[in-house]
Amino acid sequence: MFVSIVGATGYGGLELIRLLNNHPHLKIKSLHTSSQIGRSLHDENAHLMHMKDKLEIMDPEAIAKNSDIVFLATPSGVSSDLISQFSDLDIKVIDLSGDLRLQTPGEYEYWYKKPAAPQPIIEKAVYGLSEWNANAIKQSTIVANPGCYPTASLLGLAPLYTEGLAEAASDVIIDAKSGVSGAGKSPSAVTHFSEMNENFKIYKVNQHQHIPEIEQQLGRWSQNMLPIHPITFNTHLVPMTRGIMATMYIKVDRQTSSAELVDLYKTVYEDHPFVRVQPHNQFPSTKQVFGSNFCDIGVTYDERTGKVTVVSVIDNLVKGAAGQAIQNANILMGLEETAGLWNSPLYP
Amino acid sequence: MFVSIVGATGYGGLELIRLLNNHPHLKIKSLHTSSQIGRSLHDENAHLMHMKDKLEIMDPEAIAKNSDIVFLATPSGVSSDLISQFSDLDIKVIDLSGDLRLQTPGEYEYWYKKPAAPQPIIEKAVYGLSEWNANAIKQSTIVANPGCYPTASLLGLAPLYTEGLAEAASDVIIDAKSGVSGAGKSPSAVTHFSEMNENFKIYKVNQHQHIPEIEQQLGRWSQNMLPIHPITFNTHLVPMTRGIMATMYIKVDRQTSSAELVDLYKTVYEDHPFVRVQPHNQFPSTKQVFGSNFCDIGVTYDERTGKVTVVSVIDNLVKGAAGQAIQNANILMGLEETAGLWNSPLYP
Amino acid sequence: MFVSIVGATGYGGLELIRLLNNHPHLKIKSLHTSSQIGRSLHDENAHLMHMKDKLEIMDPEAIAKNSDIVFLATPSGVSSDLISQFSDLDIKVIDLSGDLRLQTPGEYEYWYKKPAAPQPIIEKAVYGLSEWNANAIKQSTIVANPGCYPTASLLGLAPLYTEGLAEAASDVIIDAKSGVSGAGKSPSAVTHFSEMNENFKIYKVNQHQHIPEIEQQLGRWSQNMLPIHPITFNTHLVPMTRGIMATMYIKVDRQTSSAELVDLYKTVYEDHPFVRVQPHNQFPSTKQVFGSNFCDIGVTYDERTGKVTVVSVIDNLVKGAAGQAIQNANILMGLEETAGLWNSPLYP
Amino acid sequence: MFVSIVGATGYGGLELIRLLNNHPHLKIKSLHTSSQIGRSLHDENAHLMHMKDKLEIMDPEAIAKNSDIVFLATPSGVSSDLISQFSDLDIKVIDLSGDLRLQTPGEYEYWYKKPAAPQPIIEKAVYGLSEWNANAIKQSTIVANPGCYPTASLLGLAPLYTEGLAEAASDVIIDAKSGVSGAGKSPSAVTHFSEMNENFKIYKVNQHQHIPEIEQQLGRWSQNMLPIHPITFNTHLVPMTRGIMATMYIKVDRQTSSAELVDLYKTVYEDHPFVRVQPHNQFPSTKQVFGSNFCDIGVTYDERTGKVTVVSVIDNLVKGAAGQAIQNANILMGLEETAGLWNSPLYP
Repeated sequence: MFVSIVGATGYGGLELIRLLNNHPHLKIKSLHTSSQIGRSLHDENAHLMHMKDKLEIMDPEAIAKNSDIVFLATPSGVSSDLISQFSDLDIKVIDLSGDLRLQTPGEYEYWYKKPAAPQPIIEKAVYGLSEWNANAIKQSTIVANPGCYPTASLLGLAPLYTEGLAEAASDVIIDAKSGVSGAGKSPSAVTHFSEMNENFKIYKVNQHQHIPEIEQQLGRWSQNMLPIHPITFNTHLVPMTRGIMATMYIKVDRQTSSAELVDLYKTVYEDHPFVRVQPHNQFPSTKQVFGSNFCDIGVTYDERTGKVTVVSVIDNLVKGAAGQAIQNANILMGLEETAGLWNSPLYP
Repeated sequence: MFVSIVGATGYGGLELIRLLNNHPHLKIKSLHTSSQIGRSLHDENAHLMHMKDKLEIMDPEAIAKNSDIVFLATPSGVSSDLISQFSDLDIKVIDLSGDLRLQTPGEYEYWYKKPAAPQPIIEKAVYGLSEWNANAIKQSTIVANPGCYPTASLLGLAPLYTEGLAEAASDVIIDAKSGVSGAGKSPSAVTHFSEMNENFKIYKVNQHQHIPEIEQQLGRWSQNMLPIHPITFNTHLVPMTRGIMATMYIKVDRQTSSAELVDLYKTVYEDHPFVRVQPHNQFPSTKQVFGSNFCDIGVTYDERTGKVTVVSVIDNLVKGAAGQAIQNANILMGLEETAGLWNSPLYP
Repeated sequence: MFVSIVGATGYGGLELIRLLNNHPHLKIKSLHTSSQIGRSLHDENAHLMHMKDKLEIMDPEAIAKNSDIVFLATPSGVSSDLISQFSDLDIKVIDLSGDLRLQTPGEYEYWYKKPAAPQPIIEKAVYGLSEWNANAIKQSTIVANPGCYPTASLLGLAPLYTEGLAEAASDVIIDAKSGVSGAGKSPSAVTHFSEMNENFKIYKVNQHQHIPEIEQQLGRWSQNMLPIHPITFNTHLVPMTRGIMATMYIKVDRQTSSAELVDLYKTVYEDHPFVRVQPHNQFPSTKQVFGSNFCDIGVTYDERTGKVTVVSVIDNLVKGAAGQAIQNANILMGLEETAGLWNSPLYP
Repeated sequence: MFVSIVGATGYGGLELIRLLNNHPHLKIKSLHTSSQIGRSLHDENAHLMHMKDKLEIMDPEAIAKNSDIVFLATPSGVSSDLISQFSDLDIKVIDLSGDLRLQTPGEYEYWYKKPAAPQPIIEKAVYGLSEWNANAIKQSTIVANPGCYPTASLLGLAPLYTEGLAEAASDVIIDAKSGVSGAGKSPSAVTHFSEMNENFKIYKVNQHQHIPEIEQQLGRWSQNMLPIHPITFNTHLVPMTRGIMATMYIKVDRQTSSAELVDLYKTVYEDHPFVRVQPHNQFPSTKQVFGSNFCDIGVTYDERTGKVTVVSVIDNLVKGAAGQAIQNANILMGLEETAGLWNSPLYP
């Protein structure tokens, strides 16, 4: 089967290329960018010097003719423009941007400060949190690939909601930390090495656009479908390139124990090979998933405070972007979910 | 005036030496360690190659005779042994360990898993949070220098408590992050470069020994002196050497606004030169206090959740240890509070 | 075909495990260590939580019976003890230590300050610089896998020697830099995060044990087999985990040009997929080979000084250790040289 | 005495501000930039939140009237424009750019690819390598502050030349490494955190504009004033913010020994407090001078190769820029050379 990538030279696109190189069934047919057309991929990407691929202009009809899937590794605001051009063509679309994730009209404009994609397209899009939405993904033609922070957060919170420990009215606090690659490839004062090295920064305090994405999914899981209580969610930059940790604090409705929670999580994720639940009293570090599609989760109950603490880590460019996109492609095409993704993390 | 340092070659001791070198009034009289006696300070500290000082054995009577103040830059468990040896001598003691901070019998053993210092000594010790306890410090002979995390957390929370916005029953969540120097100078698997670089780790989940220290001080500030509700407090290691950020989430009792909170904080800290309150909608990064005694604080109110977010940063080795110790020495000796400490952060 | 790994939990062993996981033909049969016998591999290696392998005691006969190849990922001094135990058994041995690399009696003792392996075993060992010694490797039973620095240095210097530009008497200066993982997994003061972060260190000045290994191979390439002039070789630690750069300065015997040199290098390495020669006036960075088996080389001629500058980069744990070991295993077993190793570098 | 800074918000300017804050005699009178006129210094420099200074437009006459010294912390190409405006005014000028360092007409254009400053001004400028040129500096009105790499290199090489061990015809190789702050404050692809972190890069291979500056000074030291042989000089970026190491390899004219060399260096630098010579067989790391004005030097003789190895480290923003500029200001004004600069390095 063949795939194409639009936005091939951003960090998301480059990571798709890296991962697809090892995929047994999905082959890259064409790479597209808005600049550098006609040049070789490796001209500005020395790490890919062994590859011969050229960068091509984006031609939706040609792409649809030659490929089974197109990945849009384009920024929010750009994807919504492109997506319409593919909507009448015979091709599956996996969009890595935030443009198709929010279903409620008005939410996107409020949080992204940009015009939303057309509502009919949004309604066709299925939220691609692979572990929790595989049935819908299988039948979809458009997948809205989740954000990096929501992936780490939602995989960590899901069992509490789906198993009824946390109620809609629960008070959820997510303190999230990310490596700097999450800020993308464009140089800026914030991501200038001399400013970011030996530094730890908070950003978008209480205003990150991933907030509504997390709330939307929690609302779906909430058993009585009550509107979810607003979550508290903050994001920080860590002086490292890759990795996200979400440290989460949740009040639960009844007494529980760490052992019970670990068992619960292990049971819930038993058949999901990319989610690895830590043993009792062990918690993950970001490096243990570096370069891989794993999401590692530690969970504990604090008897002093009556709160559950969940610690969830992913590689933001893999499970938080390109890896989950390929996982969704595997689901879409009826392949084994782990195809091309079953590599160990790079360590140390 | 003269000072001596016990534990001179740990990170806290070395930082005292660095800062005291620029002090106009306090001069180092002697440096003490448990090993390397008789060797030069610079033998294993190449950065101090320009200094001639020798490392001496600890002799409390000689120290008390020659110095006005002794700094104990020794680990928890060691300080409590040493402190008794100074208690009948004519010398002020500033202890940088956790041994004298907790006033309630039993608390120390529970959290530190070690025998506590003698209760009479603990009762003589004054908690050295300089900005909030200067009057008591001035009249004390033993100062329990605060922990690094409590310093960042308490300076950030104080105005909410002292001004009556947060009540004893409030739900406080402190998500704290530290540079690796906080783990001290002894090599270990956790702090091995190849393990810690490009990594972000959580540790001592819900079990950090600084929890009771923070709760004790919040209880003192609580207006009606009700027992404080247990706080949620977690700590992470950031792949950098210095710096602490405490990101804090607090429910307050009444409607407020970010502007009101910033004003409140600016007023509270008006006469405290080391606390710098950020303008509305600006939040500090750790690098902006690197190498200095500042504590920078940003505060905002999230109308969606009704929570106050406070972000507080310090250099863990300066305001979180040696710098605050010297600030306390200044207060003790009737010097200007900023003497020897009024240097700008190193940037970038 | 089956392989076993002795020294499975050091950095070299862990990297073999990571790479072999993707190998189409070589399967791990057993993992051996000197400690933690009977425990699961993932107990102290959370990044391998998805694997079930146990750590076993080393039993040479059992290993030889069940595996086609054994990798000794053990330190210098340990390998020489183990190697004798395998020498009469029907199994190929690939040793990642320095114990079998030096052929001249006395050299090993001089540089490694340890007793050498038995001379008959040393004489059976073939130096496994894959690109240059494939024929001998194919027929060998013991492969001495090259050191990380020699791999980068020799691949960068080879064309100058084999094509007769540099003579034995040439003056070669190799200024090499390595990520900290090259120092291994044991914590130490030098590799303590707070000491190594934001630091650049030189070590073993003019005394690195890789010097004779490089000189030995240069001597073999020297056309008239004259004894090689002693090289100048120094090593530095870079505050990063992986990667080696060798910056090399060589006087050549005749006038040349950068263009001629690039052509020469491209021709020499045309059929060697893991060596990528940079275009004229471009030079490699370590990150562009991170996590991969590539060696990237830039070369130029400085008309002002009459010197050739060669810049060669590898990932010290892949092409500098485990990757080249697998490449040698592929050669030994008649597999495609790139089997299991044809992955792109991780970027960024 | 009063000083003004032009280019106050670049890294050089900010470092001048940091260091001058502790200076007992030099007080900042005014800060000048080409943008942000009228704004507060701390608006975009949160680390200076405690300072009240405003950024002013550059008015040479006003500056000359109010200040004794003006520091030009402006980029090469800009300083040469500004300098003429100060040349008839009664004020000392210390220029941190490369514009006034090269005395031979044509050299600047060749290496900097820009028009040179007027030759009369260049001729008035004294090269400000403080330890070696104090007498000339004392009597000058314009000081060309040395480049960061030349400072580290020349302080390390000087004794070999001034004491007659190395001859003009000697073959000198300088392999230099710098923290990323040397690349300045403007974001770029090269200095983007995700590209530079966990990376080691070579740049400007054989073409760095500091080459002629080093050769010019070596020529002056060369005893018979023969034209110096072209040096080999290369530069690398280290994933850290501050610090330079120059590793240097020099053929000397006669047999010597490491002990003799260390003695020689100690004697030469005996009265120069900022140069610290390491004991025999010890070599400096960059961190041991971090944030300070020290230059630490290790030297050894390799009997195998007959080469001297010199290792020299500085903080590129202090001894390599702002610190040496203040040292030169001290010399110019007849102050103690160490005034305001005698602080210990920040460690760890």
